Amino acid sequence: MYDVVALGEAMLRLVPPNYQRLEQTTSFNVTIGGAELSVAANVSRLGLRSAWVSKLPTNPMGRMIANKAREHGVDTSHIVWTKEGRAGLYFVEFGSTPRATSVIYDRGGAAASMLGPGEIKWDEILKGTRLFHTSGITPALSQGCREATVEVIEKARAAGCKTSFDLNYRAKLWSAADAKACFERILDKVDIVITTQFDAEEVLGYTGEYEDIAKQFSDNFGTPIVAITLRGVKTVLTGTWTSLVYAEGKVYRDDVAEIEIVDRFGAGDSFTAGFIYGYLNEGVEQGLRIGDAMAAIKHSIPGDINWITMEDVQKFLESKDFRVQR
Amino acid sequence: MYDVVALGEAMLRLVPPNYQRLEQTTSFNVTIGGAELSVAANVSRLGLRSAWVSKLPTNPMGRMIANKAREHGVDTSHIVWTKEGRAGLYFVEFGSTPRATSVIYDRGGAAASMLGPGEIKWDEILKGTRLFHTSGITPALSQGCREATVEVIEKARAAGCKTSFDLNYRAKLWSAADAKACFERILDKVDIVITTQFDAEEVLGYTGEYEDIAKQFSDNFGTPIVAITLRGVKTVLTGTWTSLVYAEGKVYRDDVAEIEIVDRFGAGDSFTAGFIYGYLNEGVEQGLRIGDAMAAIKHSIPGDINWITMEDVQKFLESKDFRVQR
Amino acid sequence: MYDVVALGEAMLRLVPPNYQRLEQTTSFNVTIGGAELSVAANVSRLGLRSAWVSKLPTNPMGRMIANKAREHGVDTSHIVWTKEGRAGLYFVEFGSTPRATSVIYDRGGAAASMLGPGEIKWDEILKGTRLFHTSGITPALSQGCREATVEVIEKARAAGCKTSFDLNYRAKLWSAADAKACFERILDKVDIVITTQFDAEEVLGYTGEYEDIAKQFSDNFGTPIVAITLRGVKTVLTGTWTSLVYAEGKVYRDDVAEIEIVDRFGAGDSFTAGFIYGYLNEGVEQGLRIGDAMAAIKHSIPGDINWITMEDVQKFLESKDFRVQR
Amino acid sequence: MYDVVALGEAMLRLVPPNYQRLEQTTSFNVTIGGAELSVAANVSRLGLRSAWVSKLPTNPMGRMIANKAREHGVDTSHIVWTKEGRAGLYFVEFGSTPRATSVIYDRGGAAASMLGPGEIKWDEILKGTRLFHTSGITPALSQGCREATVEVIEKARAAGCKTSFDLNYRAKLWSAADAKACFERILDKVDIVITTQFDAEEVLGYTGEYEDIAKQFSDNFGTPIVAITLRGVKTVLTGTWTSLVYAEGKVYRDDVAEIEIVDRFGAGDSFTAGFIYGYLNEGVEQGLRIGDAMAAIKHSIPGDINWITMEDVQKFLESKDFRVQR
Amino acid sequence: MYDVVALGEAMLRLVPPNYQRLEQTTSFNVTIGGAELSVAANVSRLGLRSAWVSKLPTNPMGRMIANKAREHGVDTSHIVWTKEGRAGLYFVEFGSTPRATSVIYDRGGAAASMLGPGEIKWDEILKGTRLFHTSGITPALSQGCREATVEVIEKARAAGCKTSFDLNYRAKLWSAADAKACFERILDKVDIVITTQFDAEEVLGYTGEYEDIAKQFSDNFGTPIVAITLRGVKTVLTGTWTSLVYAEGKVYRDDVAEIEIVDRFGAGDSFTAGFIYGYLNEGVEQGLRIGDAMAAIKHSIPGDINWITMEDVQKFLESKDFRVQR
Amino acid sequence: MYDVVALGEAMLRLVPPNYQRLEQTTSFNVTIGGAELSVAANVSRLGLRSAWVSKLPTNPMGRMIANKAREHGVDTSHIVWTKEGRAGLYFVEFGSTPRATSVIYDRGGAAASMLGPGEIKWDEILKGTRLFHTSGITPALSQGCREATVEVIEKARAAGCKTSFDLNYRAKLWSAADAKACFERILDKVDIVITTQFDAEEVLGYTGEYEDIAKQFSDNFGTPIVAITLRGVKTVLTGTWTSLVYAEGKVYRDDVAEIEIVDRFGAGDSFTAGFIYGYLNEGVEQGLRIGDAMAAIKHSIPGDINWITMEDVQKFLESKDFRVQR
Repeated sequence: MYDVVALGEAMLRLVPPNYQRLEQTTSFNVTIGGAELSVAANVSRLGLRSAWVSKLPTNPMGRMIANKAREHGVDTSHIVWTKEGRAGLYFVEFGSTPRATSVIYDRGGAAASMLGPGEIKWDEILKGTRLFHTSGITPALSQGCREATVEVIEKARAAGCKTSFDLNYRAKLWSAADAKACFERILDKVDIVITTQFDAEEVLGYTGEYEDIAKQFSDNFGTPIVAITLRGVKTVLTGTWTSLVYAEGKVYRDDVAEIEIVDRFGAGDSFTAGFIYGYLNEGVEQGLRIGDAMAAIKHSIPGDINWITMEDVQKFLESKDFRVQR
Repeated sequence: MYDVVALGEAMLRLVPPNYQRLEQTTSFNVTIGGAELSVAANVSRLGLRSAWVSKLPTNPMGRMIANKAREHGVDTSHIVWTKEGRAGLYFVEFGSTPRATSVIYDRGGAAASMLGPGEIKWDEILKGTRLFHTSGITPALSQGCREATVEVIEKARAAGCKTSFDLNYRAKLWSAADAKACFERILDKVDIVITTQFDAEEVLGYTGEYEDIAKQFSDNFGTPIVAITLRGVKTVLTGTWTSLVYAEGKVYRDDVAEIEIVDRFGAGDSFTAGFIYGYLNEGVEQGLRIGDAMAAIKHSIPGDINWITMEDVQKFLESKDFRVQR
Repeated sequence: MYDVVALGEAMLRLVPPNYQRLEQTTSFNVTIGGAELSVAANVSRLGLRSAWVSKLPTNPMGRMIANKAREHGVDTSHIVWTKEGRAGLYFVEFGSTPRATSVIYDRGGAAASMLGPGEIKWDEILKGTRLFHTSGITPALSQGCREATVEVIEKARAAGCKTSFDLNYRAKLWSAADAKACFERILDKVDIVITTQFDAEEVLGYTGEYEDIAKQFSDNFGTPIVAITLRGVKTVLTGTWTSLVYAEGKVYRDDVAEIEIVDRFGAGDSFTAGFIYGYLNEGVEQGLRIGDAMAAIKHSIPGDINWITMEDVQKFLESKDFRVQR
Repeated sequence: MYDVVALGEAMLRLVPPNYQRLEQTTSFNVTIGGAELSVAANVSRLGLRSAWVSKLPTNPMGRMIANKAREHGVDTSHIVWTKEGRAGLYFVEFGSTPRATSVIYDRGGAAASMLGPGEIKWDEILKGTRLFHTSGITPALSQGCREATVEVIEKARAAGCKTSFDLNYRAKLWSAADAKACFERILDKVDIVITTQFDAEEVLGYTGEYEDIAKQFSDNFGTPIVAITLRGVKTVLTGTWTSLVYAEGKVYRDDVAEIEIVDRFGAGDSFTAGFIYGYLNEGVEQGLRIGDAMAAIKHSIPGDINWITMEDVQKFLESKDFRVQR
Repeated sequence: MYDVVALGEAMLRLVPPNYQRLEQTTSFNVTIGGAELSVAANVSRLGLRSAWVSKLPTNPMGRMIANKAREHGVDTSHIVWTKEGRAGLYFVEFGSTPRATSVIYDRGGAAASMLGPGEIKWDEILKGTRLFHTSGITPALSQGCREATVEVIEKARAAGCKTSFDLNYRAKLWSAADAKACFERILDKVDIVITTQFDAEEVLGYTGEYEDIAKQFSDNFGTPIVAITLRGVKTVLTGTWTSLVYAEGKVYRDDVAEIEIVDRFGAGDSFTAGFIYGYLNEGVEQGLRIGDAMAAIKHSIPGDINWITMEDVQKFLESKDFRVQR
Repeated sequence: MYDVVALGEAMLRLVPPNYQRLEQTTSFNVTIGGAELSVAANVSRLGLRSAWVSKLPTNPMGRMIANKAREHGVDTSHIVWTKEGRAGLYFVEFGSTPRATSVIYDRGGAAASMLGPGEIKWDEILKGTRLFHTSGITPALSQGCREATVEVIEKARAAGCKTSFDLNYRAKLWSAADAKACFERILDKVDIVITTQFDAEEVLGYTGEYEDIAKQFSDNFGTPIVAITLRGVKTVLTGTWTSLVYAEGKVYRDDVAEIEIVDRFGAGDSFTAGFIYGYLNEGVEQGLRIGDAMAAIKHSIPGDINWITMEDVQKFLESKDFRVQR
């Protein structure tokens, strides 16, 4: 029924304006964010039919999260609503060199972390769905979420649905050992792994050249496609983006895009969304190109979600013209 | 050492601008609030030496709370800092008739609720202190807080320190029965009770005329002074304020002040602060006058804390001139 | 398939902050608005399945309009997207006594006005739909829109779908004579007419007591249900709201609600949405109650859309408590 | 050459947003204000040719003041620019009942106060000018300003130019005795006096009914026209406005306008501007009507200057319709 | 009578704050812009007497445009006011690498585009005027504007007034062929051509080195002075600025200025203004220097108009000191 | 009693948002600033007990300054409050290349400048205090301030309190000759001199390599420690920071830190605070490291005060990781 279904937590994102520190601010700009929701929203913006599944509290904050998902065309009809728990928050503090941008999470007691296996009608949702996506954050939220994640990955595989998984290791949520144990239950049922070099090493101990890292997924779990996103950090406000995809024994590389950073959150999820879109439509190479375009452009847009259209992606792919577009 | 010491929780207060509903906002104005902190800040603004005691997380939000207490001259050196727990939040949604202003608390897991007896050096703090204040919110936060509240009230009494207690019943935090059981452990050691008619009835079952309610405190607990704050609600944005004090068998009444409501939060705590100030300096009647002045003016000032000076109070007491003051 | 389908134009609404005049402002707050879209959004917020049909330009402004419709759960899949035309705008200038709030429309050349009959697959959309709604603004936009409105009303009737029609006469868009000629082609196929006393007189020449006005619709067009919304204007910032419904020979009246006006736009559409919801679920009387509750509350909420839930409506219907809700 | 020439100081006006107190704000909204500049701007907005004369520092603040004067069509070519002195400031703190709105001036050392007689080419400016206006603030600024004021009033009289003078007594700038001594040098050369009851009594000791006060100007100084502005203060945010004019032995009265106060600054100057406009065009009675219309509407508009057009005035004079104007 | 008279359209410029995309914003900052108005405002700021001529609607938006012109000292007395048409708008979306800044125009139906020949008293306006300026946008607005442009250029030439013309080709408004046909009617009466390399090639087919391009104007139309502005684009937020002027067979070059881009709109018009100022006062070389100074500094200032003074220009010409100026 | 006591003026800092020029802004962000207050606040943030001494007006602006000092834990109990004088202001205009950031002071008539010797109980304050700090701005404010500065330096020396002095030469306040004469009365009683190369040359005529400059202080005044702060200016928005300390014949150097400038005000005072903290705790070398860390980070934080913690300093000293910190 859907092109893409994603499972995960979303939170309110509170940001002090104008590079202020959290401690000094008198206001917060509020948007919403969550890795899997971003993927669902971004693929919807590119034209795919997507749904985002989660557990939300029946209060204004919970509704705000669902509203914003729908704003981008994401189906929210499978969200589990509950009177227990809260909407998680995270605070972002934008910096400039030498002060790095930082995040403080306030996600304890979130409704999303109270999700357990058996609560969602996956059979119904996944029937006819082309791809299921989640990230390593979801199983890290709680024991229930861990089982719920394994459950859905298995059901997706069973339903003939492709699966994509972004490692997204969060050291504040669980240990690398716990993450590894969990990932090992999941990875052999995943068609597309997205990771950074750091996460692959930190959790799975994979080292070496990018290609080597990718191959280790293939060797250990039979992963058909491994994408490694490569962020070059020049300063806090400038850098580069590219990625590398290993698929069926072949390595695909892309140009390195220069970036001036307005908001780097959600760049990885933009890559994932672009890759899924391109991959489902035309294959790995187009996935790589669109994923990198999405990710590079994301750095220029405030918020976690990538407010772009396919037309913006096309322009990026055709030329790097930095003059005013009239 | 202090004129007033207060114990309680403080939180970040997040408010959508321009009467927006929480669900629709894209920004929050942030200040801090907490009943006892407001009392400590307000008496400090009037010239008393005050300290506020609490437990705060060692993060930007915790620091923000302590900073703002200090901004008003409140001593924060007795705060217990902890790596556990978070800073609680509350969301305020300002309404206009017929939509009432509302509050949503997000205080679960707050560091303040993790406070227990024995954590604070009360003997040292209370030595030479004239008055200790807390409210019914503090013992409602957790079992530990309940015991810590009883502990400090007893120590204050033992130290020869006056005690004031604002019932402040919060039905979302505990049942009326639990509140009653707790209050009965406390009230016989309290010199000044501040309450609304509603709280006195809801928790203690006191009914009748205002004087009757006040007398029941006196009869049951030997309370020397009972102040009942009387808010008249005309519309969501207009109303009146006055109060009545029963002290040593005598009833004191005040004029009824008209109010146009900019922000009614903290009005009760402004009364308490004004009453304490006036009472400590000149006695019950002056306490009543200054308490009501503080409370009435508070409705015109954004935030929980009353950004006024004694000069503002004097002007109010001398004349009700609503023309531009140049 | 839907509970409610609505057809109409929506525009960007630009508002100078803080009661500034348009000429003096240096910024605009931007939301979206449109009578029929507001109805679709509001019934969706109450739990009905709704769709909004319109014509929008394929640019950021057009997308913003569709996004915000979806944000409230409105189906936007039947919108006609076009490279011709623009997104209309309107500027709102909020006043206070004695300066009335005013609106300047800038809707010339809007994509919505370029809609003509035959462009929308009504047969498919209306199949199984319970109610179709539009207002007198839609046929006023252009000759094509006039014919498209007649077309859909006829198809709705043919499909066994109830129809509701809000007169919404806009003197800036067409003459009363033109409006009358058009309405006469429509009204005999309308199940629910919503109007003000003013519009009924201005366009159709109906005068007399409210009941008399309502009866004239019934007599002339056989209208089963006529709702007359009654706004009491005290000052620019205060007033009252109630309404009267005439149905099958019976008159239903409601209490008069006091209002403090934050933003009175969309109050009529809130009534319509509430009436439709109540009527479809329980009948005319419940429609009246919920319609008035929705309309009264709307005055306290910024924007054209009514950011409420059924829970807010229930609270209003149960008690008029203007104290802080904790 | 001009219809109206005005002399006076103008300053930056700094206002904390949202009813905040000065002490608590983290931002100021900045506009400009000055009694005589407001008159010049307001008559220009109504269609008269006006010039405003002052002394300004050659810095961004000085330029901002001149820019904003020109924005309303006021001729600024006679301003004296200087490297000495600063642009004065004033802080406005908006209140709500029971806290009155208040003003703190920070005008010491202003360039305007350094103006002395002989610095401005009045003969050239006043040739062919119909009316010269200033207020009691100008001579209060410094000894030099006092002499400069007397100089220009005398030159205006000599040039056959009508003169208008608003008493505008500012107790913070000079004593009532000093003001009286100065006004007695001026008033016998003034054609139109504008005053409040309060100023007339405070400075000149005039008491009694409004007509009596007006007559005393006529008796003592031969003033042809005396306008008394009458502000009714209900609450800090609501009130009334009307005025009374005594001219050549006849008393003119007007309706009392209800007002909801957004910003009451500049209302008196709006009256003056409207009166001058009406008086110069059609006589005293029309002056009264337009003056009151201008003053009443001003309360609804942020800033000292009245951002209206003659069309707004006409609407007010024709009907008091508080419904939305589309 | 004037040093510079300019003819053209001006519009409201709406900009989402903080690099937001149009689709995601909830507010717009509003200023005004228009190539020829910017030139008139900028030369006025440098001390020249300038007038701007256009057609504006008699509504708040039209008045806002005229107000802001006057704010900078521009004479607006020759504007044609009309009840037909609207004020055009344009939306600016600021980007960062790799997303270019972009503009969406919403100028259809603008009053300015309804201007035709014979509507303006050019003989009166141009008498004694030193220079007339317009750009290729004006004739592109409509057929009437095209003829009005040819009319005024001819009248300026006849009145002995210098003429300057900025090619400013806008592909969204007309084809290169139409532009060429129009420009060929104009260019032989133009004393100063300002162009980019791109426009010269796109419309007139001129290629080669900068000097060659300039010479082709001279050869084909006898243009005495040709200025080519040279923008170096490094990233979306950084670049360089310089220009080259060909006059009477001689080529003038300038240093290349480094720029960090806050707002690059109006840089070309700043060059034009600076060039005209320098040229009229001291000749071509000074024009080049001041033009480049103006253009470079403009990139650091929000809005289309260059809020600088001659003192700022002098500082730039004397030293490139990037330390804080106290 | 204190670790650090500082004497100096503090002012309100008014800043137009978004790189606007002062002349164009419609709002100011307001914080407070003052070189010595920044030092006191910054050392307090690092954990030292500090007091700031000054003279402030008893009005909201004066209170705002004291409030903000207390917010950072600074003791304000020794401030002299007065009804004379005002709170000084300064306006900051942030620029981008090629427009430098600039400051306009409006500090004439400030209460702080009215401070004279004998007004402050230095003996009491300095007893047991480890270090007294002031800068060359304080004696520049007035003759009284000059004598008060000499007075306190002498008393500090007498009390066995270390003294630090930042040359901070302000050419707008006094001549280099006057500064030199004053500094010569002070420098022989100063333990730590902080200066830029520019100030040392401008006031004292010291030239040569950095070490040479430092040695001249030592040679002429016996200064034990001389710190020279070294700012590298690349563009208006980028640069570098390092410093060099000469102590007891030894030269200490540090790494050069890259900076992206959000707000460079207070960087020097951050160095001073960090140096004092490190020096008092561990000695010169640690002072240099912490001073440079503080200064470098300060460039990324809005306002004059450095909203950091020791933890932020540690992170900087341990690694230069510009990636997002989660």
